[in-house]
Amino acid sequence: MSQQPDWNVLMRTCPSRLSLTHIANKWTALIVIVLGDGKHRFGDLRAAVDGISGKVLTETLRVLERDGLVKRHAYAEIPPRVEYELTPLGQTLHGPLRALGTWAENHIEEVLVARDEFDTRR
Amino acid sequence: MSQQPDWNVLMRTCPSRLSLTHIANKWTALIVIVLGDGKHRFGDLRAAVDGISGKVLTETLRVLERDGLVKRHAYAEIPPRVEYELTPLGQTLHGPLRALGTWAENHIEEVLVARDEFDTRR
Repeated sequence: MSQQPDWNVLMRTCPSRLSLTHIANKWTALIVIVLGDGKHRFGDLRAAVDGISGKVLTETLRVLERDGLVKRHAYAEIPPRVEYELTPLGQTLHGPLRALGTWAENHIEEVLVARDEFDTRR
Repeated sequence: MSQQPDWNVLMRTCPSRLSLTHIANKWTALIVIVLGDGKHRFGDLRAAVDGISGKVLTETLRVLERDGLVKRHAYAEIPPRVEYELTPLGQTLHGPLRALGTWAENHIEEVLVARDEFDTRR
């Protein structure tokens, strides 16, 4: 089928809305930013995404694997080794999510000034 | 001070992490996408972001106003009129968040195929 349906994230029933819900998420953003540097073992990924719990990392990686963004590699070694990497589809998301992180880093001083002004007015 | 600190969203204690938490959020993304078209009244914004509750819209707008991304205009009319628009800072975020929405719309078919494959394997 060459004609695409009109996917629209603004409609709650559109499947693209759920996909947006999965990607417009701080943990997804941080995980995808770190995996942009290449394959990581679970423990290394957890250390890189400072503050994430093991449970949330496991759950988020599973959602990302199911959505085709992350590939899980389990190596039959002793002790077992499991690594995660971005799929080609996940790599197309790295730029947009890295852009969000960069925005937050580049504009945090303006945000902090705005917060001070807002809190002073109240 | 001309030298910037090394803001880093990967560090949980960095103020930029909280800013990322506010912007890497589906409701923020959808609200900023809609406000990219210009000023909206509360009810029009709620109708445009299909599925958002009044409570979540109110709370999210307040976070965005406090962070300096959205400006609230209250007009002394009868009945009172309240409108929301992106600030210049908020406008710099429109592109990155619209890019996330476009990604979800452009890649949802690949995501749906990946989900089917994942669920079949389990």
